[in-house]
Amino acid sequence: MAVNFPVPVPANLKPVPGIELGYAEAGIRKANRKDLLVMTLAPTATVAGVFTLNRFCAAPVQVCKAHLEGMRISNAPIRALVINTGNANAGTGEAGLANANATCAALAELLGCGASQILPFSTGVILEPLPVDRIKAGLPQAVANLKADNWYHAAEAIMTTDTLPKAASRKVDINGKTITLTGISKGAGMIKPNMATMLGFVAMDAKVAQPVLDHLVKAAADKSFNCITIDGDTSTNDSFILMATGASDVEVNDMDSPEYAALSEAVIGLSQELAQLIIRDGEGATKFMTITVEEGASVEECRKIAYSIGHSPLVKTAFFASDPNLGRILAAIGYAGIDDLDVSKLNLYLDDVWVARNGGRHPDYQEADGQRVMKQSEITIRVKLARGDAAATIWTCDLSHDYVSINADYRS
Amino acid sequence: MAVNFPVPVPANLKPVPGIELGYAEAGIRKANRKDLLVMTLAPTATVAGVFTLNRFCAAPVQVCKAHLEGMRISNAPIRALVINTGNANAGTGEAGLANANATCAALAELLGCGASQILPFSTGVILEPLPVDRIKAGLPQAVANLKADNWYHAAEAIMTTDTLPKAASRKVDINGKTITLTGISKGAGMIKPNMATMLGFVAMDAKVAQPVLDHLVKAAADKSFNCITIDGDTSTNDSFILMATGASDVEVNDMDSPEYAALSEAVIGLSQELAQLIIRDGEGATKFMTITVEEGASVEECRKIAYSIGHSPLVKTAFFASDPNLGRILAAIGYAGIDDLDVSKLNLYLDDVWVARNGGRHPDYQEADGQRVMKQSEITIRVKLARGDAAATIWTCDLSHDYVSINADYRS
Repeated sequence: MAVNFPVPVPANLKPVPGIELGYAEAGIRKANRKDLLVMTLAPTATVAGVFTLNRFCAAPVQVCKAHLEGMRISNAPIRALVINTGNANAGTGEAGLANANATCAALAELLGCGASQILPFSTGVILEPLPVDRIKAGLPQAVANLKADNWYHAAEAIMTTDTLPKAASRKVDINGKTITLTGISKGAGMIKPNMATMLGFVAMDAKVAQPVLDHLVKAAADKSFNCITIDGDTSTNDSFILMATGASDVEVNDMDSPEYAALSEAVIGLSQELAQLIIRDGEGATKFMTITVEEGASVEECRKIAYSIGHSPLVKTAFFASDPNLGRILAAIGYAGIDDLDVSKLNLYLDDVWVARNGGRHPDYQEADGQRVMKQSEITIRVKLARGDAAATIWTCDLSHDYVSINADYRS
Repeated sequence: MAVNFPVPVPANLKPVPGIELGYAEAGIRKANRKDLLVMTLAPTATVAGVFTLNRFCAAPVQVCKAHLEGMRISNAPIRALVINTGNANAGTGEAGLANANATCAALAELLGCGASQILPFSTGVILEPLPVDRIKAGLPQAVANLKADNWYHAAEAIMTTDTLPKAASRKVDINGKTITLTGISKGAGMIKPNMATMLGFVAMDAKVAQPVLDHLVKAAADKSFNCITIDGDTSTNDSFILMATGASDVEVNDMDSPEYAALSEAVIGLSQELAQLIIRDGEGATKFMTITVEEGASVEECRKIAYSIGHSPLVKTAFFASDPNLGRILAAIGYAGIDDLDVSKLNLYLDDVWVARNGGRHPDYQEADGQRVMKQSEITIRVKLARGDAAATIWTCDLSHDYVSINADYRS
């Protein structure tokens, strides 16, 4: 049911020098599926991440944060990532932390590095003990098949309710030299930003100074994974990791340099691509919606209104039905919590169709025009607030029968 | 599909002396259904209301507020309410206001009072012009069949996607004298408080001073209609009106009196009954859920967490599936926006089953116990925060296939 989803072609996913990937079928929740991924990094790599703001942040997220913090103190680089699906290791208390640490220790022993040089990630069901023995048993297999061109399999190995693997790759020229960026992402429900509400991993072979990478990972998240929503449910495990292996001879040490500008454009572009893939494969999605709110007094109020529209079950079901019941969009704008919003100045467009002018139905608006746009698989909702110069864009999908089916049946 | 819904028995809906009700089939959106209601009040009546906080507040809501304000200045009492279904008269700009005013003027002429002595209400599709001529044409029929014992028909006349009419009645003794309270409500989707997110009308034959009624309508809304949610969508038209006809010899002029205590208990009880009927008949509802958050630092944070759980599509679909995927509740608590929440002290119960202790799965928790409770049609989720003495309770329903069907097909 994915919406205009560009299925990744394995040959188009370029290896990133300095990165190898290996997977295993560890039987964590179900047999005969890839559910364990190991990603190793060259010792020259820098790594930065942003994580869920959910207060029930999962054990692996807590361990990731601690290990990234430790890296700054010890200067011992992060050498590998380990990702399991089938179990989120969230809501698992002290035992969960012990299991996440045990996973790191087991992989560290296989790779010959310190446990704190490993970043662990988990995704799947919450509130169930992590079957750490199955993970430990699967790690040797994953390490044995480590390869630079395993990105497609890696994307498959991190899928849960995803129907398609999510991966993208690009090469960019920086000062006449070419660098490679490749990334994978996963997530199809429990998707709302703050932070990424999914797993996203982007690697490149540039050499990027740690403070520059720290800045870039936040900038990229804010313009990509923090601009998507499927159901407004912020996961306990969301993580977005940016890795720069330093294997190429492109160096970026200064955020004011033209090199940084070119690099950040590429990273943000790739991150947006990966984030939008999550929406295109949203649980039960049949429509891909871009919601843009313009002429706001602040970016924050534009985002509030965009999310109010993007989270409204009534708006989402109307789009599923291709029914131009567009008053539901006005209602969602009205309850977005902008207390001094003057709706009498507001304009609403559906693609090129001017639906509401000055807060009321546009006199020339014809239902047939709204109907024509609603039938498309990609639709832009544009709201103009007439309050200022700020703007924000988010991406979301509709709410269909299949969303209910998928989430009612997920565990069974 | 309504959940344990007590279908009202017409004979049990007691007439309220001082109130008459008449209805018509005005063909506002569909033929052959009651879609217009007139309710007249004795000239001794006091009236108070609370209304939606949606910035796109509908034209009739704006007119209601103006007429209630005018009443305070002119002392000319409110003499009637007029309610149409099929069209919300929202997002309709200046023309919408003119149509709401024209409706009042037409009814005022029939009743021989001023237009500002009429309160108008509309519910239905947003962003479409109100067919005011059909309403005007239907009013004489509604006025012609005004009767004191028309409450059941009145409840039918205000239904939209409701599958059952919502009405309740009770008699209470105050100082040895009996008063009668009867009310009706409607709403089945686009239900989230701030304010009532539906239409609710409660009448009684006590004589209640205006400042006392003003206080009571807010107190009752806060403990009833402001404690329910179906889909988190706050409507443009929500209104809750409390009417005291003064036809009995019970007088309540003092908020510190025992009479007020007895009266407010009755009004709040009836309002809760009417509010809960909306959830029991929630669009596609198969489960009635009570969410109680205790031991909070403030009522506000308890409500925030309760609504975060109650709005989560993942929680709601898990309840629909009777699947004890209870980690989703923890995730919803975690993203409720309580920044300093210490989840390691949190406890979660499903009815009598202790699911999570100190933020993790309770060691004695058995999935079979969770499963047993999830299969019930009425379920209480109880969260203890260990932060203070505040508490809050809300009522909600699950999210089923039928919710999607109903809202995808509503207009077609």
